Amino acid sequence: MSGRRILGIDPGSVKTGYGVIEERGGKLTLVDAGTISTKASDPLEARLLIIYQTLRGLIEDRRPASVAVEEIFMAKHANAALKLGHARGVALLAAAEAGLSVTPYAPRLVKQAIVGKGSAEKEQVARIVGLILGLKTLPGVDATDALAVAITHAQALRMNQRVLLTAGKKPR
Amino acid sequence: MSGRRILGIDPGSVKTGYGVIEERGGKLTLVDAGTISTKASDPLEARLLIIYQTLRGLIEDRRPASVAVEEIFMAKHANAALKLGHARGVALLAAAEAGLSVTPYAPRLVKQAIVGKGSAEKEQVARIVGLILGLKTLPGVDATDALAVAITHAQALRMNQRVLLTAGKKPR
Repeated sequence: MSGRRILGIDPGSVKTGYGVIEERGGKLTLVDAGTISTKASDPLEARLLIIYQTLRGLIEDRRPASVAVEEIFMAKHANAALKLGHARGVALLAAAEAGLSVTPYAPRLVKQAIVGKGSAEKEQVARIVGLILGLKTLPGVDATDALAVAITHAQALRMNQRVLLTAGKKPR
Repeated sequence: MSGRRILGIDPGSVKTGYGVIEERGGKLTLVDAGTISTKASDPLEARLLIIYQTLRGLIEDRRPASVAVEEIFMAKHANAALKLGHARGVALLAAAEAGLSVTPYAPRLVKQAIVGKGSAEKEQVARIVGLILGLKTLPGVDATDALAVAITHAQALRMNQRVLLTAGKKPR
């Protein structure tokens, strides 16, 4: 029996992390994870095409049921935000074209869900992601970030289900 | 004989302007122009899908030889830049998928090329775009902005050609 698959994406114009997890018998397992790397010296549109096509292929191969993406807030560095937005845009497009729902999660919320602390370091997040999924070796930091978003989404879905189950048990 | 067609794009997450122009006998004429409007209340990924699919259809129908897009610089408002980046990302993707080269033009350069003044108002730009293309009625401001970028690109191509022709005439 195939479980519920979630694709997590950590978009970036040079490195985009992705991670697919699956829930089987209440346990989260790793399906696939990696980093889409592009050359910063290549034209932005060529890099976007690689990100988009890789994510489209990944969605086709791994068939996730839903997608979770990091929400990005940046108070400074508008130009960095702009470039990041380009990558996030084609990631959202790849999901929307496949008819998948996309749920954004703020970085602080992801850290809170994984480590229990909104200000946790990336390395802490990576280590706990590895523990949750029972990984012997950790993929790159972009991939563990993407997996962290996917796990957060899995926890949110579980909580919603619990709320729905509890609601269903209410006395009439 | 079909002339050289240029697609200009002024991307935005709510309104994306587009304009296709053609050069025939040294004169620029309008082929198509308009605005892709999306609902700000709709999920961002649904809006990006509309922008992307409309631009893909436009490229298929109008078959431009190249694409010109506004380059966006914003010192403030990182979140606005981020959203704008999403829309610009799927616009660049639509061009890259069709194998078209994309040339970015800074807004100041476009205003300089059209009005002769980098600080020109949008209305001035629109009026002169109308004069250059011999339009009786002006399309919306997003469309005239997109046409302005396309005209700037046409001028740049013409200048490059002149430089190349002059170079060719150099005494050996």
